[in-house]
Amino acid sequence: MSLATLQAEVHRNGAGIALVLQILGQRFGDRFSAAQAVREQHAHTTTWLPNQAPDGVVFAETTEEVAEVVSVCAEHRVPVIAFGTGSSLEGHVNAPAGGISVDLSRMNQVLEVHAEDLDCVVQAGVTRKQLNEYLRDTGLFFPIDPGADASLGGMAATRASGTNAVRYGTMKDAVLALTVVMADGRIVHTGGRAKKSSAGYDLTRLMIGSEGTLGIITEVTLRLHGIPEAMSGGVCPFPDLESACNAVIQTIQLGLPVARIELLDTLQIRACNAYSKLDFEETPTLFVEFHGTEAGVREQSELFGEIAGENGGGTFVWATQAEDRNKLWTARHNAYWASLGLRPGSKGVSTDVCVPISRLADCIGETYRDIEESGLIAPLVGHVGDGNFHVLVLVDVEKPEEIEATEAFVERLNWRAIEMGGTCTGEHGVGQGKMKYLDREHGAGLDVMRTIKRALDPHGILNPGKILKTD
Amino acid sequence: MSLATLQAEVHRNGAGIALVLQILGQRFGDRFSAAQAVREQHAHTTTWLPNQAPDGVVFAETTEEVAEVVSVCAEHRVPVIAFGTGSSLEGHVNAPAGGISVDLSRMNQVLEVHAEDLDCVVQAGVTRKQLNEYLRDTGLFFPIDPGADASLGGMAATRASGTNAVRYGTMKDAVLALTVVMADGRIVHTGGRAKKSSAGYDLTRLMIGSEGTLGIITEVTLRLHGIPEAMSGGVCPFPDLESACNAVIQTIQLGLPVARIELLDTLQIRACNAYSKLDFEETPTLFVEFHGTEAGVREQSELFGEIAGENGGGTFVWATQAEDRNKLWTARHNAYWASLGLRPGSKGVSTDVCVPISRLADCIGETYRDIEESGLIAPLVGHVGDGNFHVLVLVDVEKPEEIEATEAFVERLNWRAIEMGGTCTGEHGVGQGKMKYLDREHGAGLDVMRTIKRALDPHGILNPGKILKTD
Repeated sequence: MSLATLQAEVHRNGAGIALVLQILGQRFGDRFSAAQAVREQHAHTTTWLPNQAPDGVVFAETTEEVAEVVSVCAEHRVPVIAFGTGSSLEGHVNAPAGGISVDLSRMNQVLEVHAEDLDCVVQAGVTRKQLNEYLRDTGLFFPIDPGADASLGGMAATRASGTNAVRYGTMKDAVLALTVVMADGRIVHTGGRAKKSSAGYDLTRLMIGSEGTLGIITEVTLRLHGIPEAMSGGVCPFPDLESACNAVIQTIQLGLPVARIELLDTLQIRACNAYSKLDFEETPTLFVEFHGTEAGVREQSELFGEIAGENGGGTFVWATQAEDRNKLWTARHNAYWASLGLRPGSKGVSTDVCVPISRLADCIGETYRDIEESGLIAPLVGHVGDGNFHVLVLVDVEKPEEIEATEAFVERLNWRAIEMGGTCTGEHGVGQGKMKYLDREHGAGLDVMRTIKRALDPHGILNPGKILKTD
Repeated sequence: MSLATLQAEVHRNGAGIALVLQILGQRFGDRFSAAQAVREQHAHTTTWLPNQAPDGVVFAETTEEVAEVVSVCAEHRVPVIAFGTGSSLEGHVNAPAGGISVDLSRMNQVLEVHAEDLDCVVQAGVTRKQLNEYLRDTGLFFPIDPGADASLGGMAATRASGTNAVRYGTMKDAVLALTVVMADGRIVHTGGRAKKSSAGYDLTRLMIGSEGTLGIITEVTLRLHGIPEAMSGGVCPFPDLESACNAVIQTIQLGLPVARIELLDTLQIRACNAYSKLDFEETPTLFVEFHGTEAGVREQSELFGEIAGENGGGTFVWATQAEDRNKLWTARHNAYWASLGLRPGSKGVSTDVCVPISRLADCIGETYRDIEESGLIAPLVGHVGDGNFHVLVLVDVEKPEEIEATEAFVERLNWRAIEMGGTCTGEHGVGQGKMKYLDREHGAGLDVMRTIKRALDPHGILNPGKILKTD
């Protein structure tokens, strides 16, 4: 019997969950809710995955409270699902076996800033924008930028990254230490503030990307960076996707320390023009940004200009002033909303694959032909410096044949990336949506993951039905 | 009963090990040895830790052979200890419960170089110098440099780093994927060649730093870097340790992308002068190196010169030519041998702590006073850009009171680093020598590590008696 089935049964029997709802209601008062609307809001998905609501929601304010909730749930074998801002894309916060959603959004304190060590400690509910706002006067910033204003705990839990990852790495690199509530309610501190350590197993990295299935992250120690002396952003049109990809590949191979290098295809540019009232040439386009000293940024921009030129890149539009740069990146960040405007009433289904950089042009080329042959409306954007890209399929969810065609396309895309030595998810995580690809991607490694899951969460109460099945 | 005790008992009973020795002898012929000298060589330690020899040594040539050895050992509950080059410093390759040492030095093939993806796949026995020699004509290099010409499998297993880590990170950052033989003989591939992935638990990072206690690493996929267009190295004397530390702290806080920044104290400089026939001023000295474009390196050097000057740094000696730079770094790399020359016949006991950069001057200052008060002869060198430093205590191992004084000093040093928010090992690993510090450093985290160890190696056959006890 699968874990989810088992939990569902316990749930249906009602023995555990009824008691837990009663206990938590008494304990947390108005910070507990079993209202339908609140429950459904906490099982938010951005796809056609069904909304599978938890039985109740606790708004926790401290690590100790999270530990209390987990302890109660552990005793009664009731699932616990961590919730940050609900911006995940693969059904991570769904509750297929019911249980308790622990909303961490009120754990939004920046606890410590060690400017002299370029690090800080935040509660899991602090969002990345909130942190950067907080850091404003320190000369420091936190670079990881997945687009959405996600919570830092959620970003750690899904091993998030985004536009700046090509230079600053992903959450795997950005996190020094975590506070985690384990499946039995124990509170564990993983790692310290030293920049490196060889003192035992890397529990920090094990928890990063575990999507709340091995523990609930309640505090995060993050590495910060000095705001660069100079930044320069630019937009460069290319005659076709292949030339744009080749420019990216050469940029990475030459070791140019580009801070951001984003690809938007013709359809995406058209959407952005319409949505943000811009007049970019409607052709595959690279958005780039360079960070460094004044001289360094100038040198990088020139080098990139040469690479772009050699690959047929058109006239560059540069933005060195913060205001212009923000406008440019706002257009990029609004790509999702802009895309939805291409087909009002449709739902955007975001995909997420990542391949070795040498296969980027191949993977995007094949995918593009696949989109055309499928007749789908699906703009493409990508953090291409990492070999990572997204296709946003605009689906009329009232039409089953469209859902079917989209599902088939998404499957082909994931197999394609895995075949090319890549991964079925570069940054969105597995959740419910990507589980079926892990077997081919990891083989026997998936069994090792399962062994770890069983050892750390023997009753399967932590976010059941995500990443892997334990039966 | 502790794992080590249990294994020792099985061993004494002779039931398992006798059979295993017979099976492996037949299977591997002259690639198996139970000769005393070979066994002792494979339990090499660089400290006063006793040489605890395995019962036999297999020289494996493929992952499948390693799997075969582990399977046989698993069946008969006999310990298996992975052996690379034997350059570890904390008794990692000792066999306190006997068993089989798997020597991986013949697994020395570079399997794939993907220059276009800046990565390569090597067998675990390939050493870092061998890899860089192999890469010579590709324009690429592998930056992690722990001093010793260690095997890349061993470096992954101990989460090694060294002089370049301040810029290029540690083995945690350098490894994309691993092939690992698990405790039951299964072969697992962790990770792929995509630059990032969110597809499940990070088994790669879990294995890195696990010191052969969770699995035996047989292949390593490594990230490579383009050889920088320009490199510039320099040596700068400081009036005292504190000024040198402060120059380092400011360099890091300013985000200067220094490739190496190494501190040698007065005693160490004296030793290097004598050993390498140099004439450095005998005072605390920073060795630095910058990588980048011609202009970038010039800019970085100038900025560092200003910081050094503000902190009382003396006349800089620069080396931009490869030959001069190599001479300079050879002196640094020979620090260990040079130190031994300070006290012929002594044994060098290397310590290894790492603290948040803001505490570097405090930690080094207190440690220096401790050395003086203890009357020990103990030069200090450090990868100070990471807050990591080593004290090499020169011990006359014939004098028990010296061993006692050294042990007490090492203990104080480790507690001091942990108290300052640091770690008892920045890069050498835990082995046997650092086990006693993990409880204070990790608290409940150590129990989580123990749970993982028990789950992945239920019979405790993988490198027992290292990192943690499982009883």
